[in-house]
Amino acid sequence: MTEELRIRPATTADVSVVLALIRELAEYEKLLHEVVATEELVREALFGARPVAECVLACRNGVPVGFALYYYNYSTFIGRAGLYLEDLFVRPEHRGQGIGAALLRHLAGLAVQHGCARMEWAVLDWNKRAIEFYERMGAVGVRDWTVFRVSGAALVRLGS
Amino acid sequence: MTEELRIRPATTADVSVVLALIRELAEYEKLLHEVVATEELVREALFGARPVAECVLACRNGVPVGFALYYYNYSTFIGRAGLYLEDLFVRPEHRGQGIGAALLRHLAGLAVQHGCARMEWAVLDWNKRAIEFYERMGAVGVRDWTVFRVSGAALVRLGS
Repeated sequence: MTEELRIRPATTADVSVVLALIRELAEYEKLLHEVVATEELVREALFGARPVAECVLACRNGVPVGFALYYYNYSTFIGRAGLYLEDLFVRPEHRGQGIGAALLRHLAGLAVQHGCARMEWAVLDWNKRAIEFYERMGAVGVRDWTVFRVSGAALVRLGS
Repeated sequence: MTEELRIRPATTADVSVVLALIRELAEYEKLLHEVVATEELVREALFGARPVAECVLACRNGVPVGFALYYYNYSTFIGRAGLYLEDLFVRPEHRGQGIGAALLRHLAGLAVQHGCARMEWAVLDWNKRAIEFYERMGAVGVRDWTVFRVSGAALVRLGS
């Protein structure tokens, strides 16, 4: 049996597996309590009237073993788009086989095709394994900036 | 003479002032050497065939004194869009008059209208004045994540 790895765009038929992978990633990040996404919301985001993100699946013999979900952002200083990688995940039993690296290379190729000047993503500081992997792939931590956030009720209060 | 403050969407007639404000912000952040944006790139990003960002100007008596530039991103966990504030800037001689707060409130209103669950932006860690201001406005620093980045030649190498 060959163990062919193929990276392909997700389709509407993949919505339930994409949501499952989002939930598995959140569980790995100890953030499953934060996930309120549903199949309906994933379908709308990826395949709705106005898609806001794109998704590729890494498949072994046709079976999804990992995924990447991304969108294009923008840097005013550079004046060009960037690729922002919202999620990257390989199922634990398929790690150490180069699947994460293949996904990152695929995304870098998409970013270059799209005319992007950079690709960015956020990593939990305790996830040393991921950080070492990203550094091996040539990524650099942006350590002198902190993201600030207003969410939920505080956002509604601020906006009214 | 009244000192009416008005926040309005930027138009194609504002491209040169938007670029000037981007450069003034970069100078304030000691990052002017990073700015390669041009009027052409700003026009394309905001008003091109496929706009990737939006911009509002804060004007006093019709004169731009600050700006905010933003785009909509996406959270897989929440399953909804967010507003990402790429740039927020008030010209130094107009600070301490509530213009930054008015811009943030305006953006929070846009985020809520758009159905966003959150609004986020990045702040340089040395910019204590900005951090204190954001915390007063109800924002919270996301301190357990680090952004990783692959840019320029490293991105091209990774993608090929």
